[in-house]
Amino acid sequence: MKLLPYERTAFYYETDQMGVVHHSNYIRWMEEARIHMLDQLGLNYQKMEELGIIIPVLSASCEYKIAVHFNDSLQIISHLDHFNGVKFFISYKFIKDGNVHATGKSSHCFLDRSFHPIRLKKLFPDIYETFQTSISSEE
Amino acid sequence: MKLLPYERTAFYYETDQMGVVHHSNYIRWMEEARIHMLDQLGLNYQKMEELGIIIPVLSASCEYKIAVHFNDSLQIISHLDHFNGVKFFISYKFIKDGNVHATGKSSHCFLDRSFHPIRLKKLFPDIYETFQTSISSEE
Amino acid sequence: MKLLPYERTAFYYETDQMGVVHHSNYIRWMEEARIHMLDQLGLNYQKMEELGIIIPVLSASCEYKIAVHFNDSLQIISHLDHFNGVKFFISYKFIKDGNVHATGKSSHCFLDRSFHPIRLKKLFPDIYETFQTSISSEE
Amino acid sequence: MKLLPYERTAFYYETDQMGVVHHSNYIRWMEEARIHMLDQLGLNYQKMEELGIIIPVLSASCEYKIAVHFNDSLQIISHLDHFNGVKFFISYKFIKDGNVHATGKSSHCFLDRSFHPIRLKKLFPDIYETFQTSISSEE
Repeated sequence: MKLLPYERTAFYYETDQMGVVHHSNYIRWMEEARIHMLDQLGLNYQKMEELGIIIPVLSASCEYKIAVHFNDSLQIISHLDHFNGVKFFISYKFIKDGNVHATGKSSHCFLDRSFHPIRLKKLFPDIYETFQTSISSEE
Repeated sequence: MKLLPYERTAFYYETDQMGVVHHSNYIRWMEEARIHMLDQLGLNYQKMEELGIIIPVLSASCEYKIAVHFNDSLQIISHLDHFNGVKFFISYKFIKDGNVHATGKSSHCFLDRSFHPIRLKKLFPDIYETFQTSISSEE
Repeated sequence: MKLLPYERTAFYYETDQMGVVHHSNYIRWMEEARIHMLDQLGLNYQKMEELGIIIPVLSASCEYKIAVHFNDSLQIISHLDHFNGVKFFISYKFIKDGNVHATGKSSHCFLDRSFHPIRLKKLFPDIYETFQTSISSEE
Repeated sequence: MKLLPYERTAFYYETDQMGVVHHSNYIRWMEEARIHMLDQLGLNYQKMEELGIIIPVLSASCEYKIAVHFNDSLQIISHLDHFNGVKFFISYKFIKDGNVHATGKSSHCFLDRSFHPIRLKKLFPDIYETFQTSISSEE
């Protein structure tokens, strides 16, 4: 399955006095791109939350290579790297005009509304299957 | 009762490429100052939320007079202007070295967890009284 | 001239623990919508900054009517209300499914890179004209 | 030299609809803590920028262990891990009541106002020395 990249233009308020987009915003863009990507896989974030599945971030990282400026339009490509039933791992590329401006990674788990880990396979087998299938088709 | 002003130093990430603090952050600082002020009056925001009182913003406005820069330290003085049992109104002054850099206003109401208006006087008479008393002593 | 409204979907990180979009983000969305609107009028923000025209916010206000939730898609309509050669005034409507969720206003002036007011009519007559014409055609 | 940890209380607008502080804000808190720490070492960020030294972020990462809630007060301890004349590396611990809620890392370089790398040792020997000495005394 071919996923659409996430398109994003940098907002004015995302810049800082260095004249470039502040590095913290890339972590936010990763969330936007991740939610957009999962939605295309049939894993709608809002619906999962409504089912009581909370998906916190366990780790996030970003390597900044070329600065991004106000009004720059980027493609953010997220890739579901790995899923072991308990956690999943995503990597990101921030691309403008064919150049990689940054790369990122994040990892996530599944909690219930009381912030306790849930066994996805048992409680939400459909969602578990979709994650499994998405990984297989991506690898 | 003499309230302490809210002290705040501008963070780097709050600046934009104009080289000054982005105007949207003043609205956030108003929230910080408001919560700090209400806490001193005995109206702890966190406790009110735990009791099921949600206090949304009905309106917010800010007039920007002198720019604020990274690392500038401000005093933000909030004043509980009015309370009619259903809504309350706060005004703000952003002061640095005796100069007013900005002024603001906000209004708020009281909702329950389902976002329905609550009658504070009936359900939480203590909190109602504290608001009433705070207004009287301020005026 | 018919301007396209600004389309915006609420991001996850724009919500707060009340479960709705935090009110400060509306001020940021107003900036996004304003820049989008001015661009359509031929007043590209980035180009104006490159010419040395800095356009700070003199005032901003928002009235919150119906909460906006994560993933809600809004149309933000900005209207150039008034221009007197020195300042301009914009009003905003946040619309979802035909309902007005919020309204806003902002005012702005023109400064040079040293933050001194500039006489637009004299220094940048083309930009002055475009503002003038835009107001006339809107009114 | 004993450095003071950076004290920070979580703001309301830093929470998201999960009811905890959004993960992107930890990256911002790392910046606050870093600037606070460097200032104690005699490396005032604002002064360095005024001298024309721009210090961008090359990489940033965070591991989230225990959620942080609105109004929680944290100590953020930053440690200057390494400096090789061209880059420096900082690690962070987010501590509340003796528990590590998160850990982070960031790396940075030195640029001039045109975003070209600068040789700190040659151009700003005092600042170079301060970095060197700070590392030695920390290790």
